[in-house]
Amino acid sequence: MIYFNCDYNEGAHEKVLRRLIETNMEQTEGYGCDPYCDAAAKIIREKCQAPDAAVHFLVGGTQANAIVITAALRPHQGVVSARTAHVNVHETGAIEASGHKVLVLPAKDGKISATQIDACYQAHVKDDAFEHIVQPKMVYLSQPTELGTLYSLKELEEIAGVCRRNGMYLYIDGARLGYGLAAAENDVTLPDLARLCDVFYIGGTKVGALFGEAVVIPNPVLQQDFRYIMKQRGGMLAKGRLLGVQFLALFEDDLYMEISRYADRLADRIREAFIRKKIPFLVENRTNQLFPILSDEDLKWIGEKYCYSYQERMDDSHSAVRFCTSWATSEEAVERLLGDIDRL
Amino acid sequence: MIYFNCDYNEGAHEKVLRRLIETNMEQTEGYGCDPYCDAAAKIIREKCQAPDAAVHFLVGGTQANAIVITAALRPHQGVVSARTAHVNVHETGAIEASGHKVLVLPAKDGKISATQIDACYQAHVKDDAFEHIVQPKMVYLSQPTELGTLYSLKELEEIAGVCRRNGMYLYIDGARLGYGLAAAENDVTLPDLARLCDVFYIGGTKVGALFGEAVVIPNPVLQQDFRYIMKQRGGMLAKGRLLGVQFLALFEDDLYMEISRYADRLADRIREAFIRKKIPFLVENRTNQLFPILSDEDLKWIGEKYCYSYQERMDDSHSAVRFCTSWATSEEAVERLLGDIDRL
Amino acid sequence: MIYFNCDYNEGAHEKVLRRLIETNMEQTEGYGCDPYCDAAAKIIREKCQAPDAAVHFLVGGTQANAIVITAALRPHQGVVSARTAHVNVHETGAIEASGHKVLVLPAKDGKISATQIDACYQAHVKDDAFEHIVQPKMVYLSQPTELGTLYSLKELEEIAGVCRRNGMYLYIDGARLGYGLAAAENDVTLPDLARLCDVFYIGGTKVGALFGEAVVIPNPVLQQDFRYIMKQRGGMLAKGRLLGVQFLALFEDDLYMEISRYADRLADRIREAFIRKKIPFLVENRTNQLFPILSDEDLKWIGEKYCYSYQERMDDSHSAVRFCTSWATSEEAVERLLGDIDRL
Amino acid sequence: MIYFNCDYNEGAHEKVLRRLIETNMEQTEGYGCDPYCDAAAKIIREKCQAPDAAVHFLVGGTQANAIVITAALRPHQGVVSARTAHVNVHETGAIEASGHKVLVLPAKDGKISATQIDACYQAHVKDDAFEHIVQPKMVYLSQPTELGTLYSLKELEEIAGVCRRNGMYLYIDGARLGYGLAAAENDVTLPDLARLCDVFYIGGTKVGALFGEAVVIPNPVLQQDFRYIMKQRGGMLAKGRLLGVQFLALFEDDLYMEISRYADRLADRIREAFIRKKIPFLVENRTNQLFPILSDEDLKWIGEKYCYSYQERMDDSHSAVRFCTSWATSEEAVERLLGDIDRL
Repeated sequence: MIYFNCDYNEGAHEKVLRRLIETNMEQTEGYGCDPYCDAAAKIIREKCQAPDAAVHFLVGGTQANAIVITAALRPHQGVVSARTAHVNVHETGAIEASGHKVLVLPAKDGKISATQIDACYQAHVKDDAFEHIVQPKMVYLSQPTELGTLYSLKELEEIAGVCRRNGMYLYIDGARLGYGLAAAENDVTLPDLARLCDVFYIGGTKVGALFGEAVVIPNPVLQQDFRYIMKQRGGMLAKGRLLGVQFLALFEDDLYMEISRYADRLADRIREAFIRKKIPFLVENRTNQLFPILSDEDLKWIGEKYCYSYQERMDDSHSAVRFCTSWATSEEAVERLLGDIDRL
Repeated sequence: MIYFNCDYNEGAHEKVLRRLIETNMEQTEGYGCDPYCDAAAKIIREKCQAPDAAVHFLVGGTQANAIVITAALRPHQGVVSARTAHVNVHETGAIEASGHKVLVLPAKDGKISATQIDACYQAHVKDDAFEHIVQPKMVYLSQPTELGTLYSLKELEEIAGVCRRNGMYLYIDGARLGYGLAAAENDVTLPDLARLCDVFYIGGTKVGALFGEAVVIPNPVLQQDFRYIMKQRGGMLAKGRLLGVQFLALFEDDLYMEISRYADRLADRIREAFIRKKIPFLVENRTNQLFPILSDEDLKWIGEKYCYSYQERMDDSHSAVRFCTSWATSEEAVERLLGDIDRL
Repeated sequence: MIYFNCDYNEGAHEKVLRRLIETNMEQTEGYGCDPYCDAAAKIIREKCQAPDAAVHFLVGGTQANAIVITAALRPHQGVVSARTAHVNVHETGAIEASGHKVLVLPAKDGKISATQIDACYQAHVKDDAFEHIVQPKMVYLSQPTELGTLYSLKELEEIAGVCRRNGMYLYIDGARLGYGLAAAENDVTLPDLARLCDVFYIGGTKVGALFGEAVVIPNPVLQQDFRYIMKQRGGMLAKGRLLGVQFLALFEDDLYMEISRYADRLADRIREAFIRKKIPFLVENRTNQLFPILSDEDLKWIGEKYCYSYQERMDDSHSAVRFCTSWATSEEAVERLLGDIDRL
Repeated sequence: MIYFNCDYNEGAHEKVLRRLIETNMEQTEGYGCDPYCDAAAKIIREKCQAPDAAVHFLVGGTQANAIVITAALRPHQGVVSARTAHVNVHETGAIEASGHKVLVLPAKDGKISATQIDACYQAHVKDDAFEHIVQPKMVYLSQPTELGTLYSLKELEEIAGVCRRNGMYLYIDGARLGYGLAAAENDVTLPDLARLCDVFYIGGTKVGALFGEAVVIPNPVLQQDFRYIMKQRGGMLAKGRLLGVQFLALFEDDLYMEISRYADRLADRIREAFIRKKIPFLVENRTNQLFPILSDEDLKWIGEKYCYSYQERMDDSHSAVRFCTSWATSEEAVERLLGDIDRL
């Protein structure tokens, strides 16, 4: 069985692992106050061209989302997101457990628009009963989205504009950010994100690290006392340097982009194979997740060799499923899959 | 200006007020441990034919909803409701502030069905990632709904059946319960509610009391330690007898039903007047809230004499608005309104 | 049985009740947006000489404490209080249920000092592990304290000074504020409180109202969006004018101070009777709560006629108990008690 | 500089690290549903002689405490602990952020007694105002305690007895459990813990792992839906097998006990060196933390070569400090320290 079901089946990229091995017996301060975290934060600030941004390292994505949102909002404030957003559907209510409502908007291909966000904000302030309704204060986007699509720079600039005019924070979940930055159609850079967002995170768990997400906070208001919230919510790793060491390995030689490009290229090859067979997709995209719509018969056959993840039923005899590539996907595995797609 | 905008513009019914005056200087225990609360609870248990139900008195509806849900659910469990439900839209995220997600279903005329609820439950248990998703554990209905519609006995029995089969609690918000019980088309009784629900509340604020809601808890599991949660969430009134005295006045001579019938009858007269003028409604119902769809011109004209509440825009020149009657609405006010409707 | 056990055994002062009766059938806006709330807020601002303070009305003390603290603090911040403080011992963890730790200091006669508070703050900022410890951000005092003692103006000024120097909020719980303001030894005024506090509340439940507390917020930072939090935490009364009407009655003719002086005077008479019998007190004070230390024999005998509340065991044969007077205590009841104290 | 300040300065034991390297490119299911987590859970159940216990793996101690307590308690229930307990002082209010009060008892050498716990419980149930007070429902102990002391088997049996009689849960935080189990004076085994506790955790972060704590839940009531809470609170690691692999390495060849004995033996040598110099200790213990009381002069001198952590000021010229050993402490480092202690 070859796993294409997700992008976190393996451990860490060998260069990341090697740095962990090399530093294993060093003695450092705990809780992220070590030279490795400092160096990794420094290089991330440089890559983002954001010399004043705060950079903190957390272990996972749900943790990052809950801590960022908890740290940013007052109790009556909510987060605007796509209905398909990870914070809305796949975190067991972590945001609500922190006391905040997720204010969902209908999504198109996993994305929401500046117009929708502005309408949501305006509807709130114009409602006579506005104090009886959760105040929309933060916008949550995923880049790439949960459906592997990307916001263009223009779209992000429009959304950031709406946020600033309305006093809302823009937060981008970058669990798979590398696969977005490296995508063929992408025109958004790390400096763009640092310029447009109040806070965002650069995902490591799905892009080469054993685990770890780097939270970047350009907005000084959101920087204040962030580490208290990290500790309180169980997000301050005792041996915090494990995160610093990994992000240093990922960013010092551009490894993060290199392995992201690799995964996207493999995904492109699989995508083309499906297209050649005239197999439609749930959504068009160019990142590391593919959502082909396959017949039950094809799914049964291909499921004997490959693990994919189930997405949704489309009609009586077809379902959309997900195939992912990652930094760890082997060329061989892809070759075999390509061969079998041709046989569909 | 005559107010038809809501059903809580005035104070209390004179008989309720009189009992408060008569008992004003009596000395009793605080926090609801007094003979009036005991007597009111006893009579409510009798009316509900639920001798083992717990009955507690709270000050308002948002408070009641938050306390009931907080007391019933574990942190990973959510409440299934109509998208239009009060807990979802008009409580500033009180349920989320208690840590629980509201799992919304599309509503038809303010109602959800047993089929929808069962599908929601089944989708959860069948999802491979079920532990990553909020567990649907309680169903929240309003009777009447926020749109003045009613669940029939058959509908409630089906919903209760689904809840029991799936280990879910059924909770009914009865903020306007009297106006539902007294409605022409209603076939649900208090004993039905006590038999079908795990917990429900009988609204006083909108039906004759200065304030107050009587929470009835037939399910012994949900009875445990309820008063701790009341106290913790600011819902234990120091002079708790104020609630007991009022509910005793409302229930000892059937005043609650009498004044509810009165309000529904007035609403029926207004409804007929709109129908005579061929004015359509946003939703058909027979309780104390009416939602006529009026032209901008008519609204402007009628708004000079009467206060209504705005509901939603229907087309370029029409809006649905809400007119409410209540125990406090005078026959004279209705006569004047009828005359003016005829002039539309 | 005559109740001296607490100061909330009866309903409302007759003048308060009369105003509720007179206004009962008026139609007003709900949720505190009515002329009575406006007028009551205006007069309270005048009495406080705080023209820019926000004034909001809540139903009870636990609710007021939870809402004020929830509205003021970020998740990692805590409230510094005396160990004996109401928020620490008698609110079923309402503050913790809002997510905040109560940071307790040893109390002397129910009070804490500026020196203690400053030491608590300094210990936090100087601790290497400060981010692992709850940040002390608000000071909670009760005036009078739970033991009926009073902070002097000098003490409050010192505490306010420490708070300002350290960026902490000062919050005073005035559940029994009238009985403090009216006490023989008091030198603190409402304008002093408005000048020194960031937020405080003037208690109505124990001082002439059926229920109700007036929250006064001089600090503009704490004013922002306060009503959202009120609604979310179940503290926005539908018929909000009931609170405005009562506070207007209490403040327009100085009724609040008049009835407070009356209660304190009765307490003084009882106090003198105990002193004449050489009965010691748990704590010396001049407000409406007395804490005599009585023998088991005396308690048994006096408990047959009078209801008191139990405070704590002092030695093998003596306990401290509490007798309260209030605006509702009759001269006759006090005369009888005085006679019986003489017989101890 | 040689670090003796804490027991988490280094990475992982080489055998643990090797297993991570060996399994790095394997593909497994995520979220702890992999063969390594299964195998690690199995071996832990065997070591605990608790075939029906649930075993879950979390990343860190604060996370484990917050998740266990959140999963176990209803909102009005609190955790009884020593004043010095980690949950009370060093988790930035994580327990309160989950809504629960920590009910502190005075500690002797970091420990509380069955008698104290029973008195706390009895005081609650006998209080007239019990519903106004947080209900003590869980007891939190650390074994070893934050001061390196140990509960004896007899003490734990007495505490467990009190808990069972009173319907309270017993939870033991084993962040340093290995160093307790391996201590010279210890008479408590893993099967004892599994028999006496409702839930406890075996610490990995401080005992040979990169990170990780194994939560063992013998009580079936507390097992229900635990993984939902893990996910919601950010504690479900995407590559969950990293935890399984590490605990398997620690437990399959008794490595956990072997390295714990090693660290305790080194600590014993340092302890003896202090004793030889007649240097007193803050507390007597036999685990891997030592708390000598040293003069300012000695501290300055020794601080130039060794990093220790500061505990508390004892008098004008002396402070208690902490020296820790761990699985990673080298014999050489200890030899040098012993030499320097002799020179004090």
